[in-house]
Amino acid sequence: MAVDFDVLVIGSGPGGYVAAIRAAQLGLKTAIVEREALGGVCLNWGCIPTKALLKSGEVYESLDHLADYGLSVEKRGFDFAKVVERSRKVAAQLNGGVGYLMKKNKIEVIEGTARLEKGEGAPKAIVALKAGGERTVQAKNVILATGARARTIPAVGLEPDGERVWTYREAMTPKATPKSLIVIGSGAIGIEFASFYRALGSDVTVVEALPRILPVEDEEVSAAAKKAFERRGLKFRVPANVKKLTKSKTGVAIEIEVGDKAETLEAEVAIVAVGIVGNVENLGLEALGVKIEKTHVVTDGHGGTGVPGLYAIGDLAGPPWLAHKASHEGVHCVEHIAGLKPVNVNSPIPGCTYANPQVASVGVTEAQAKEAGREIKVGRFPFKVNGKAIAAGEMEGFVKTIFDGKTGALIGAHMIGHEVTEMIQGYVLAMTLEATEAELQATVFAHPTMSEAMHEASLDAYGKVIHL
Amino acid sequence: MAVDFDVLVIGSGPGGYVAAIRAAQLGLKTAIVEREALGGVCLNWGCIPTKALLKSGEVYESLDHLADYGLSVEKRGFDFAKVVERSRKVAAQLNGGVGYLMKKNKIEVIEGTARLEKGEGAPKAIVALKAGGERTVQAKNVILATGARARTIPAVGLEPDGERVWTYREAMTPKATPKSLIVIGSGAIGIEFASFYRALGSDVTVVEALPRILPVEDEEVSAAAKKAFERRGLKFRVPANVKKLTKSKTGVAIEIEVGDKAETLEAEVAIVAVGIVGNVENLGLEALGVKIEKTHVVTDGHGGTGVPGLYAIGDLAGPPWLAHKASHEGVHCVEHIAGLKPVNVNSPIPGCTYANPQVASVGVTEAQAKEAGREIKVGRFPFKVNGKAIAAGEMEGFVKTIFDGKTGALIGAHMIGHEVTEMIQGYVLAMTLEATEAELQATVFAHPTMSEAMHEASLDAYGKVIHL
Repeated sequence: MAVDFDVLVIGSGPGGYVAAIRAAQLGLKTAIVEREALGGVCLNWGCIPTKALLKSGEVYESLDHLADYGLSVEKRGFDFAKVVERSRKVAAQLNGGVGYLMKKNKIEVIEGTARLEKGEGAPKAIVALKAGGERTVQAKNVILATGARARTIPAVGLEPDGERVWTYREAMTPKATPKSLIVIGSGAIGIEFASFYRALGSDVTVVEALPRILPVEDEEVSAAAKKAFERRGLKFRVPANVKKLTKSKTGVAIEIEVGDKAETLEAEVAIVAVGIVGNVENLGLEALGVKIEKTHVVTDGHGGTGVPGLYAIGDLAGPPWLAHKASHEGVHCVEHIAGLKPVNVNSPIPGCTYANPQVASVGVTEAQAKEAGREIKVGRFPFKVNGKAIAAGEMEGFVKTIFDGKTGALIGAHMIGHEVTEMIQGYVLAMTLEATEAELQATVFAHPTMSEAMHEASLDAYGKVIHL
Repeated sequence: MAVDFDVLVIGSGPGGYVAAIRAAQLGLKTAIVEREALGGVCLNWGCIPTKALLKSGEVYESLDHLADYGLSVEKRGFDFAKVVERSRKVAAQLNGGVGYLMKKNKIEVIEGTARLEKGEGAPKAIVALKAGGERTVQAKNVILATGARARTIPAVGLEPDGERVWTYREAMTPKATPKSLIVIGSGAIGIEFASFYRALGSDVTVVEALPRILPVEDEEVSAAAKKAFERRGLKFRVPANVKKLTKSKTGVAIEIEVGDKAETLEAEVAIVAVGIVGNVENLGLEALGVKIEKTHVVTDGHGGTGVPGLYAIGDLAGPPWLAHKASHEGVHCVEHIAGLKPVNVNSPIPGCTYANPQVASVGVTEAQAKEAGREIKVGRFPFKVNGKAIAAGEMEGFVKTIFDGKTGALIGAHMIGHEVTEMIQGYVLAMTLEATEAELQATVFAHPTMSEAMHEASLDAYGKVIHL
């Protein structure tokens, strides 16, 4: 087989570009196809620019509490155009960073839109180049990393127009903060935008169809999050079904059903955050016989699609739709291709929500463990009695641990509070290393830190908690 | 032997009160003697109230950077009396918390000053009660946890007067911030006060006798910390010997030698932070035959002093002088007394400095590993190319990992940057679990977080780093 590359990656989000870099590190001749901007949704329109916005919102909100620390200011204010501009600059910087990494690793970047055709031994890619024309590329291995996009439901009016109805994409660059806002969907994306706009003063209502907000999180975390957000003035309709969304020139009207009761909410803008769908279209997958389920490519444990030489990773390969799951799969897939026999495909995957307060978790929830019929030990520790949290004035939230009652293995950890997204890695490491309660309890957590609550929650599951 | 208690703890700092709680959990009849305030130096005059002060300083300093986030305020200010008052309230709350825990665990609190005498089978304690009078207490096991105090050097004038020359204690409650300040000693305590007063506008010079600041940290961290502090206007004389400190009514003059050059520094106030000495005096230890070295009680692996029934833990038992080392030893000592055969006495102990930026570390430095003749692999990752750090505007600092070149075991980790004190626990867990580079690399760190730098620093040690 005469091929141009060892590895061709289609899509340059975190899954794709990380896979490409790892391939290059392993000495494989590698190219990457991108139809829009290097870094994909995550760097350009997702994880990264939202964190820049959220930081501005969080700092602005904190100015309300300066007196608690013996500090004062007059006239706090924000320049929304600058808030957005900063977020775009951050995205641009990281987008440039990926370009630098591609060059440094000698990975050819092909700007265009690829579709696949059956090739000799492996599929070949026909790329409609951005600059015009077409280029046919053959590679021993093709890794699909085309990602996903916001799900919309045109039938009930959940179809973004960029003016009155936004997806995450429009929500990131409006000209001004809306006076009033309805967020449809209370997963991480919906809750983050709700938190951001509320911090900057918008009147925000969140509508969730499932019985609780942040529905993938542990039930106690969902409940605590709702209370914490309500303290900040967020409003919720949970559970509530959206029956119809109607746009007007000045806003939106949303008919919902809360239980048996019909209600109409009105606002300047609606954000639709009801999940995502995989970008499986126009790739020629059907003709190749690739199996697709619920807009996602079905893969084996190494990203293999069943078609020789064709792999899929990241959002395209199904949930959880998280950048770190994508890059983990990317590295694994490439190491598998290179014959390194990686074994870590089942590493536990943490999930984070960067609202104020933050939520982070890994492993099973208490309900999931019980449904699976597992005997469990559960520990809890609230930040309100943690010394560092008190000293820092960050007493909101708690830590919850779930251990297997028979083996003592940590099987789930759930956190809500200040900067818990930076703390969860300790539990992820513990689970990856198959730590038991005894090992967690024998670990010395630095004093005074909020992370001591992680230790105490492990002690609490076994009746050894100190500060409760 | 007719005894009053199974366990008598002398001193109620974190080592002491945690030991007492664990003893009570194990069904041992327990009492604790405290001569001053429950919680000891840590809760009342150390770790906790300084963190409250530092938080005020940090938030105040951050108001200088609001424009970076698209925000603005007019006239920032602080009310120093309120800053100090908040710190005292936090200390009082935690002191009350220890009182609550003693009651809840049915631990008798004896207010007074104890000295030991040879008893029948075990030493007995004579307590000069605060309320007046004396009480003799006999216990099967006595755990000494009397802690330590600031070292002073009267010969060169390093003797605090509470007016012009402070230890940590006076530095925590002055009436106003000094216009100018000299901090003698650049360990964690010295650097934290330097950072705090600089944040509130004092002109601060730090004098360190050793060749670099934060001398127990990795050399690269020391160097980066110095630069970061200098960017905030801190001044340093390193290495410099203090020859003489002279007080006047309006300030202090400090003669130092920097290399061959003599220099005189003048300031309103000096803080002496040149280490601590164990509180070994007036306990009757000599008569009991307890071995003391460099103001610390010599102990075996379980806190045993060699005298039957007499144990020592925490600062009194030697370095590192850290609250979490003390409470870890306390739990271990009590579990040993109860016959549980705990094996975790050698858990790695992290160290933290809560300046801005923060420093956190665990295990050996690169220089220590090399001195020990170990073959090592070293990884580094700077926050300035970490997506979350860029989005949050917290790009200062880096992560450094040290692995054993033969086994791949993580043997040291060093961090400097925003909130690294909350991140270090992941590496501590990894070291406690004897993790290798392969396990750290197989762990999925949430994106986008600053903790991803911990992953990258592990990858970097083995030529697998992605974002460099």
